Amino acid sequence: MNDQTQAPQGLSPYVSVRWQGDTLGQLELLDQTILPDRVEMVPIRSVQEAHEAIVALRVRGAPAIGIAAAYAVVTGMQSLVSRRASIGESLEHAKSLCDYLATSRPTAVNLFWALDRMRRIIDRNSNLASALELSNQLLREARQIHDEDRRMCHAIGEYGASLFEHGSGILTHCNTGGLATSEFGTALAAILTAHYQGKEIEVYADETRPLLQGARLTMWELQQHSVPSTLICDSMAAQVMREGKIQYVIVGADRITARGDTANKIGTYGLAVLAKHHGIPFFVAAPSSTFDLSILDGADIPIEQRKPEEITLAFGKRTAPENVSVYNPAFDVTPAELISAIVTEVGIIHPVDEQHVRGIVRR
Amino acid sequence: MNDQTQAPQGLSPYVSVRWQGDTLGQLELLDQTILPDRVEMVPIRSVQEAHEAIVALRVRGAPAIGIAAAYAVVTGMQSLVSRRASIGESLEHAKSLCDYLATSRPTAVNLFWALDRMRRIIDRNSNLASALELSNQLLREARQIHDEDRRMCHAIGEYGASLFEHGSGILTHCNTGGLATSEFGTALAAILTAHYQGKEIEVYADETRPLLQGARLTMWELQQHSVPSTLICDSMAAQVMREGKIQYVIVGADRITARGDTANKIGTYGLAVLAKHHGIPFFVAAPSSTFDLSILDGADIPIEQRKPEEITLAFGKRTAPENVSVYNPAFDVTPAELISAIVTEVGIIHPVDEQHVRGIVRR
Repeated sequence: MNDQTQAPQGLSPYVSVRWQGDTLGQLELLDQTILPDRVEMVPIRSVQEAHEAIVALRVRGAPAIGIAAAYAVVTGMQSLVSRRASIGESLEHAKSLCDYLATSRPTAVNLFWALDRMRRIIDRNSNLASALELSNQLLREARQIHDEDRRMCHAIGEYGASLFEHGSGILTHCNTGGLATSEFGTALAAILTAHYQGKEIEVYADETRPLLQGARLTMWELQQHSVPSTLICDSMAAQVMREGKIQYVIVGADRITARGDTANKIGTYGLAVLAKHHGIPFFVAAPSSTFDLSILDGADIPIEQRKPEEITLAFGKRTAPENVSVYNPAFDVTPAELISAIVTEVGIIHPVDEQHVRGIVRR
Repeated sequence: MNDQTQAPQGLSPYVSVRWQGDTLGQLELLDQTILPDRVEMVPIRSVQEAHEAIVALRVRGAPAIGIAAAYAVVTGMQSLVSRRASIGESLEHAKSLCDYLATSRPTAVNLFWALDRMRRIIDRNSNLASALELSNQLLREARQIHDEDRRMCHAIGEYGASLFEHGSGILTHCNTGGLATSEFGTALAAILTAHYQGKEIEVYADETRPLLQGARLTMWELQQHSVPSTLICDSMAAQVMREGKIQYVIVGADRITARGDTANKIGTYGLAVLAKHHGIPFFVAAPSSTFDLSILDGADIPIEQRKPEEITLAFGKRTAPENVSVYNPAFDVTPAELISAIVTEVGIIHPVDEQHVRGIVRR
């Protein structure tokens, strides 16, 4: 983490997650299941409501889920604070809240990571006198997690924005914005930071089938920030490149190997091939925590298959015959040689190879 | 037209257009607006119903529209045959039917071409004695148009199938099958012919956003013919290529220039770039009538923009925020150098350049 990077305040007209007030305050989530139709901050009044919100994808994106779960532990402690429960009962209850929240999204690494940080606070504070004191410590840690993510996003934004020339067209895929993180996001942070720096940019967003995160979420975020932007179908990316409208492609990442092979939303690899054909730089933006240095070759990343109905029952309407065979990989792997640079919160990896990855990502 | 090529009979379990009976018989269309939900042959009882069916896309695909319109002229003559109208009145009425039907789809070149053939029959037969005799001649011409298309499709199918090795994976885009033509289609004819020749093939069909002709129509046709087939989103094509599942790509064409630059459904150009990157042959299949020999450079083909709602209101549901900017080109142009061969009913153009195009397409 580059501590010199200050998070600009008040630039985002929306947040995915917020905590209002003190230890007895309230968690609120921007309900992403009803975007872009309606914009509603829903109050989360119990740990059960938080669990449901994560399961139902009201909050989505690995960092945003982690932050929401951390705050939800504080929410779950409030009844004990009110009735002045003993510290013994409070410590036990706080641990059980962490265990319960961890079951909401079994594949979300950030969720476990955030809850582990909350568990360490519980373990370290058995000497406290009351439920209130413990809850104060838990809220402080949740705020810390939230703030670290905010600084990480803005650091990626600053590094990423430095790559974009004034007057550029930038293509992105899926949603990598403030909805998935504390604010600003990863790949979208680079775009938003360039925009707030006064660089004239035009963003093209792939709609991102099958779940349309680009159309539903990224276009909404760009609109909220008044960034000039245009929605295209995934199949139109090659054409807008050919027409000279695109000077850079920037995407996020789910997992990056030690040599820079990058797993990301399905469609990313094809974009990288198209960018190479058109001589367009292809950037990945992700926190350093996305790197899995135990893996070198992207071929060793297993590719999750998702259910056929995402494609055959698009948007609640049947769009293919019954009983057709469907191939629905959740993501693909872009080999390092197609990636011009990887932007992290601790610096830019360029060229993308094992030596330069290990030079930037030290763990 | 290669007259040696015989149309195999009875292989297709469905047809887009058919005429039942004699001059007083009935036009029937497979209603493509309700596919794949329901399979219904709708009777067309008047020329007004035929006009509505073309406007509403119950029948679609340039050749199928032309065939349907030709038969619809016969339908429009039936009341005159029944009341034994004079030949003078019959000739006038037949001409007005052609004029009326030509207004149903102003951009459909095949529609005008088919109606021009019907007009020539009217002009040549002023010596006939009755409405019945004229109608018999009109039905004979409509059947001729239908049969020529059938032979054209099967000739393309034979030439195209010769390109595919046993045990191949073949990727296609949009709908180029029997629904768009008399039967079997163009690019899909090559696939179906290979299948009926006993070649083991596995077809991957792009869903083809925004209108999903691949998911709705091509997958349905492949299912009807029992061809092993798998539906993917357009953004997954690169991944299935990388996994080694694809040995050939074959697509149709809207318009081909004298040097082989090919305008086709949006997404085609990107597929051609991806195929080149993976060393996969990329084929175009189209009747020789698709060539516009007056144009050399594909850059001279204007690209039609379609309405934003095709992308933002996918399937009746809002999938993007209101008032977003949308880029929605109907097709793209694939340069000849990315095309391995063009399959026509009169032979295979390979390599694809002006000399070889003019060597096969003589007009």
